[in-house]
Amino acid sequence: MAVKKKIYFFSEQKTDGRKSMSDLLGSKGANIAEMCRLGLPVPPGFTVSTEVCGEFLRKKSLGTSLKKDIQKNIQSLEKITNKSFGGENPLLLSVRSGAKFSMPGMMETVLNVGLTSKTVKALVRSSSSERFVYDSYRRLIMMYADVVMEKGLGLGGSPGIREKMEHMLETMKKKNKYSSDSEVSAKEWKGLIKKYLSLIEQNFGVPFPDDHNKQLSGAIEAVFLSWNGKRAKEYRAFEKISNKAGTAVNVQSMVFGNLGKGCGTGVAFTRNPSNGENSFFGEWLPNAQGEDVVAGIRTPQKISGPQKGSLQKEMPKAYKDLEKTRKKLEKHFKEMQDIEFTIENDKLWMLQTRTGKRSGAAAIKIATDMVAERLIKKDEAIRRIEPSQVYESILKNIVEEDLKKAVLLGRGLPAGPGAATGQVVFCAEKAEELGKKGKDVILVRRETSPEDIHGMRYASGILTERGGLTSHAALVARGWGKSCVVGFYGLKIAENNKSAFFGKKRIKEGEWVTLNGADGSIFEKKLELFQQPIKDFEPLRLLLSWADRYRKLHVRTNADTPEDCVQALQFGAQGVGLCRTEHMFFNEKRILQFRKMILAGKREARLKHLRGLLPYQRKDFYKILNTMDGLPVTVRLLDPPFHEFLDIGEKEVASLAKTLKETKKEIIRRIDQLQEVNPMLGRRGCRLGISYPEITEMQVEAILGAALELKKEKKNPRVEIMVPLVGSLEEFLHQKNIIINTYEKLSKKHKQKLSYKIGTMIEIPKACFSAGIIAKNADFFSFGTNDLTQTTFGFSRDDVGSFFPGYLEKGILTFDPFESIDEKGVGALMDIAIKSGKKNNPTLSLGVCGEHGGDPKSINFCNEIGLHYVSCSPFRVPVARLAAAQAVL
Amino acid sequence: MAVKKKIYFFSEQKTDGRKSMSDLLGSKGANIAEMCRLGLPVPPGFTVSTEVCGEFLRKKSLGTSLKKDIQKNIQSLEKITNKSFGGENPLLLSVRSGAKFSMPGMMETVLNVGLTSKTVKALVRSSSSERFVYDSYRRLIMMYADVVMEKGLGLGGSPGIREKMEHMLETMKKKNKYSSDSEVSAKEWKGLIKKYLSLIEQNFGVPFPDDHNKQLSGAIEAVFLSWNGKRAKEYRAFEKISNKAGTAVNVQSMVFGNLGKGCGTGVAFTRNPSNGENSFFGEWLPNAQGEDVVAGIRTPQKISGPQKGSLQKEMPKAYKDLEKTRKKLEKHFKEMQDIEFTIENDKLWMLQTRTGKRSGAAAIKIATDMVAERLIKKDEAIRRIEPSQVYESILKNIVEEDLKKAVLLGRGLPAGPGAATGQVVFCAEKAEELGKKGKDVILVRRETSPEDIHGMRYASGILTERGGLTSHAALVARGWGKSCVVGFYGLKIAENNKSAFFGKKRIKEGEWVTLNGADGSIFEKKLELFQQPIKDFEPLRLLLSWADRYRKLHVRTNADTPEDCVQALQFGAQGVGLCRTEHMFFNEKRILQFRKMILAGKREARLKHLRGLLPYQRKDFYKILNTMDGLPVTVRLLDPPFHEFLDIGEKEVASLAKTLKETKKEIIRRIDQLQEVNPMLGRRGCRLGISYPEITEMQVEAILGAALELKKEKKNPRVEIMVPLVGSLEEFLHQKNIIINTYEKLSKKHKQKLSYKIGTMIEIPKACFSAGIIAKNADFFSFGTNDLTQTTFGFSRDDVGSFFPGYLEKGILTFDPFESIDEKGVGALMDIAIKSGKKNNPTLSLGVCGEHGGDPKSINFCNEIGLHYVSCSPFRVPVARLAAAQAVL
Repeated sequence: MAVKKKIYFFSEQKTDGRKSMSDLLGSKGANIAEMCRLGLPVPPGFTVSTEVCGEFLRKKSLGTSLKKDIQKNIQSLEKITNKSFGGENPLLLSVRSGAKFSMPGMMETVLNVGLTSKTVKALVRSSSSERFVYDSYRRLIMMYADVVMEKGLGLGGSPGIREKMEHMLETMKKKNKYSSDSEVSAKEWKGLIKKYLSLIEQNFGVPFPDDHNKQLSGAIEAVFLSWNGKRAKEYRAFEKISNKAGTAVNVQSMVFGNLGKGCGTGVAFTRNPSNGENSFFGEWLPNAQGEDVVAGIRTPQKISGPQKGSLQKEMPKAYKDLEKTRKKLEKHFKEMQDIEFTIENDKLWMLQTRTGKRSGAAAIKIATDMVAERLIKKDEAIRRIEPSQVYESILKNIVEEDLKKAVLLGRGLPAGPGAATGQVVFCAEKAEELGKKGKDVILVRRETSPEDIHGMRYASGILTERGGLTSHAALVARGWGKSCVVGFYGLKIAENNKSAFFGKKRIKEGEWVTLNGADGSIFEKKLELFQQPIKDFEPLRLLLSWADRYRKLHVRTNADTPEDCVQALQFGAQGVGLCRTEHMFFNEKRILQFRKMILAGKREARLKHLRGLLPYQRKDFYKILNTMDGLPVTVRLLDPPFHEFLDIGEKEVASLAKTLKETKKEIIRRIDQLQEVNPMLGRRGCRLGISYPEITEMQVEAILGAALELKKEKKNPRVEIMVPLVGSLEEFLHQKNIIINTYEKLSKKHKQKLSYKIGTMIEIPKACFSAGIIAKNADFFSFGTNDLTQTTFGFSRDDVGSFFPGYLEKGILTFDPFESIDEKGVGALMDIAIKSGKKNNPTLSLGVCGEHGGDPKSINFCNEIGLHYVSCSPFRVPVARLAAAQAVL
Repeated sequence: MAVKKKIYFFSEQKTDGRKSMSDLLGSKGANIAEMCRLGLPVPPGFTVSTEVCGEFLRKKSLGTSLKKDIQKNIQSLEKITNKSFGGENPLLLSVRSGAKFSMPGMMETVLNVGLTSKTVKALVRSSSSERFVYDSYRRLIMMYADVVMEKGLGLGGSPGIREKMEHMLETMKKKNKYSSDSEVSAKEWKGLIKKYLSLIEQNFGVPFPDDHNKQLSGAIEAVFLSWNGKRAKEYRAFEKISNKAGTAVNVQSMVFGNLGKGCGTGVAFTRNPSNGENSFFGEWLPNAQGEDVVAGIRTPQKISGPQKGSLQKEMPKAYKDLEKTRKKLEKHFKEMQDIEFTIENDKLWMLQTRTGKRSGAAAIKIATDMVAERLIKKDEAIRRIEPSQVYESILKNIVEEDLKKAVLLGRGLPAGPGAATGQVVFCAEKAEELGKKGKDVILVRRETSPEDIHGMRYASGILTERGGLTSHAALVARGWGKSCVVGFYGLKIAENNKSAFFGKKRIKEGEWVTLNGADGSIFEKKLELFQQPIKDFEPLRLLLSWADRYRKLHVRTNADTPEDCVQALQFGAQGVGLCRTEHMFFNEKRILQFRKMILAGKREARLKHLRGLLPYQRKDFYKILNTMDGLPVTVRLLDPPFHEFLDIGEKEVASLAKTLKETKKEIIRRIDQLQEVNPMLGRRGCRLGISYPEITEMQVEAILGAALELKKEKKNPRVEIMVPLVGSLEEFLHQKNIIINTYEKLSKKHKQKLSYKIGTMIEIPKACFSAGIIAKNADFFSFGTNDLTQTTFGFSRDDVGSFFPGYLEKGILTFDPFESIDEKGVGALMDIAIKSGKKNNPTLSLGVCGEHGGDPKSINFCNEIGLHYVSCSPFRVPVARLAAAQAVL
């Protein structure tokens, strides 16, 4: 077998590597090589490949052949730099880790390798500053003692050697009343170095290696060893990075930004990472090394701009070079870059470049700008945006500065989008009261129920002790694009609903808190929020218009009110995929009527109360269908079990008893009889409509009555009536017959015909096996993947909170099946239903209306298995439009 | 097309039909034909086929060709009987319905057809009794008016004509102070007939047809029309008999058992239908017609025996003929027959034979006897017994005489086997208290929970207001073979638990009621019960020993206690397929410890309480494994959610708070936090063991500790540990690792090795899709078809009571999927799991341990899809053994 190349040289003259070799060279090494190929000024050096890492970790030795290779490369370096490693005009090296995937701060670096008692003197001779040389020497000694000797060789104890050395430095500075390192003189550094060297020998029993080659191999070994450091391993486990990948080692000739005037160092983005504007964005420090910028002792200055202190102003030539480099990099990488540079005696040196992290809005702006600049094609722009970035771009966020100083109260599950700040209230009534006055409130509840809806409407954010990501609170909040954190088990609400413990801190009603629905964190006090105005955000509109041309899936919305519809239309919804009719009953006046209907002992009484509800529902549907004119609207018949409407107090019982002319005891008995052990698996969905056909009749009359009215007004209502929770053909036909009969009656009455569709929700496994015969009689299937997930896994979304965190932590679940469709189980069932459904009815329309309809991974799956549309909450519509395009690309 | 034969003649001389032609001739007609072929004395006649029925109902006319056919057959009859239809020595005919499937009492009959003003006179001349002739004539007129004119032609009103005629007869008898019809003289009959005839004309506007041919075709048409009578249609809908089948019409020459001495009529079984003994069993009436026996005015006499009044004693010749016929029939039909006969002037006439209905015990005795008598083969005996008859044969039943006079309080769902009688109590404590004193109690509860177990143990029967056939009460009761009725919605228990309304009747604690678990009826008062002693019932033992040789499926039992095991072994169980460990905690002492464990805040405290429970569990397992020595015992790890153990009162809370050194409030908070919205889909099964690995450890230590102890004692414990509610490989492996590690530790400690199996329960749809990869790591799968049905359908067995009755009534469900496996949904999922399981692990053992394991239809399915065993409650084991053999046959 041919010996594999282990070391890759890079310089402006000769470079072995390239960008595509990040497997071998790590991401940093590959990018450095690419910069060299571009002819950018990169301090020359070489990369020891990731393959050597594994070899070294097995053999615990670099081996003689590798050492020879290193020597050869050092010789090349000496030639290019005209310096000598360990000799006069000494070559100094940096030794840095560099894995394929970024592991920020996880691994080690040693700088100034090559300084020995001999070369220090030579350097003092050749350099202009003795102070700088000894400062560099002490930096090497500190890093080497820490990284190579203590961590690498496993020597050392507590406190660590670095801590001891820092302490010695501080003591010396204190003694001399120095406030910064720059005040330390060459002599003082020399004195400290002496102390350091004896501390090392005392501490480790071996001296600091006064040999440049030993230093180099020691540093390389230490970097390799840091791959298996505890923190690095944990990080990889968490980020699911393979342990086999290994790190490369980048050995590079040192350049110095701290040689005095005409020197500096900085970091920059080639565009603005917050808003995506095409302007140079970065910070620099004159006369400093990279680590000084990170340490944050001095305030960095802006790179661009005519103001004093900017690089542009202070070092115009270097700035010009940098600006040229920036353009070159973007043109080459076709991506916004995050760069590090050093200026040594007015010469610019590029130390690193990589794809820059950015906000959602910035990502969209940059991608669309780059299309305009002809850097990338439209499809590439679409591919490049994470759907979550679209979501992020339209939501509220906490202002960066506020976030830095915020005090965390605890963390729950990130259920709702974006951030919210407001005064805490503990009941829906209070939320409504204050919300109506225009106040920002955060509704804090143990859990929410449909009865809280009126308060939730008025709350800026919702926080619950219980429930998972698909609990009632989470679903409602996401539907409205409202910030929500659920499953915050640190919450204990006082019985009087006037205060609560948020972890250890007691928060009273009226105090301010801030939620971040994106990561589940809860902060003390009011924090400032910002939001990108949606309509005004042209880049997003542009991006999505491109996406619309690629995607095959239609995107509809789940909307229960005309307001939801308006919002969803703004986001580009192509119809309503799920209009839940039950929320329409949770209005004060209607709920009373509805309760009377439920508790009515006899059919006649029930009918009377249903008649009472009819005008309300018809009006609701009229408004929704009018708003969505010309677009399909799928209305689901009543779904939740009766008892969800009956969580009432003594007062309401008494009032109901009075109006129904029954004893309170009897009312309580009736309510009690409606309780269920497992409501999720009880009398709900079509089971209600089959038990009480008159309810289906009333609802259909309201839906089709509204549609017929619109038709008369020359509008184009496109109604689809959906029967929920169907398991068998018989259930479906029972409800379908009622729908058809009701239509016939109405149509005669209105003297108006209407074409409409009847379909069913596929949301229990049994339905997937009955799908074939149902399809023959249905116009559409809509997969209710929430409930299908619940029944397939036997998971109640209200109860999984007690074991889901443990499951995710122990790796028993690798993803949350309520977030992304479980392709192997739920997906397999869907596939069974789709195949048999299409076979039996080629014109069957197929969609999904569970929460998954807004999840990019699930959307990709929906596209794959041949659905026609997804339906999601209004705020998810743009996300879905992009994800649907990506699924095709 | 050849004209199809429409009429089938039968007589001792010439017979067109045969037994196998029941499709065409109906069951009665086919059996009559077969009797003729056997040379038995059957009054000659002919059968108009079922095909004519459909034709007639379409055309509303018999048609001329059929009428001609009828005339031809009448001529044949005249020839054979030497009588003339409508002439001197008049031939009289009976016209009876006869469908393929028995529809008792649903359709019509007309007797004595052919009596007209002319033939009456002729008959008076040729017969010895004028009184008999007019009696016969008035019978014809009554039946004809009712069946043909009122019902058939749709004339008539209210009250009906028969009622009016009965009233006239009664008035006449009252006037003459007659107590029975036999006292009415010829003259008086003549007078009444006159009145009847004018009533008919007055009532219907048309006269009674004084033409024998018109009478005949009218009667035939009326029988055909009765096929579509309201009652008949309802009956067929209920029994799922096709409406297309149609009825045949049997026209037969009349014989008379009421011509005086030497005459009589009777019904008999060829063997004893109650206990199956091979002795002639029947009743007869001298000088009577069939309808007199049915009317029940005179007490019928026994057929056999030397006592006065028996047919054997009174009419020895006829008896001898009947006895010969009985033998001939059994030899020919190889089945116990239910016969009707008439003796006319000492001549025996056979009117009907059919397979006789019998009790379960009788069925088994007869079948095994017939094998001994070489009438049938063993496989036929196995095929012939309904599995439900085996069940019936081992259970308690209400004594027939008591049942007749019993007062029904209401009806619930027939949940538990057999009958029970006892004093009503309304709480488990009272049930235990009285039960311990040896009293018979019926525990009446709204619903039961595991906390009621101790009382349920001591109750003779259980009655609940709520719950379905797989509710807690039903499951427990069936497991113990205990009578149980659930879902009796007429029940309202008073709040003080001292009385309840059973429908409209108030029953107080201590009053007696009787339950029939077989049909769900609830009776007032104590009724006498009887039970076939099981061990002594040799025929069942014999039958099942034959079944064992045929069946491929093994039969195990679901047993939680050594007592259950002993019982199941007596019934022939081949192992335990499901041993639920949670019931072991419901003992007073243990439950306290268990509750402390659950509510312990910290792991250490939980461990301490678990240690306390260990010895109890080990002892339980020791006993069970010892009882089942050499047979496999599948133990399921803890399954129910914690809150099921925490349904406690204030007193217990206070006591727990004290021992746990917490405030009552804190204890309530902890209990409250364990509540779940949908317990069925919450933290249970392996989710518990994953959240609290120490519980799994303790249980495994108890199970394997007991097994190792037995191994040391040279016993052969065959332990199989089952992980419940697994959905993914990761869940299974998590628990498997704990089991293996615990075994390693124990094995070292005991210095003893043990081979044991680890498997899982497949009870959620997701598991069926993960089955392939799980199978690679598992020794066995046991299908938990109860839960699999719940999740597949989205049905909570505790809550379906509110809509199941309606579903079954409306035909939306054609069967209860909790009773028989839903082959198309649940079965399809099982099939997916079995196929991928076997493919990935050819030695995988496969069983079912849901309630379906005892259901014959499901057992057949289990056999088909390739399971290795079924497991059911002890009392179901014999049923399963038979059903498993039938599945093969």
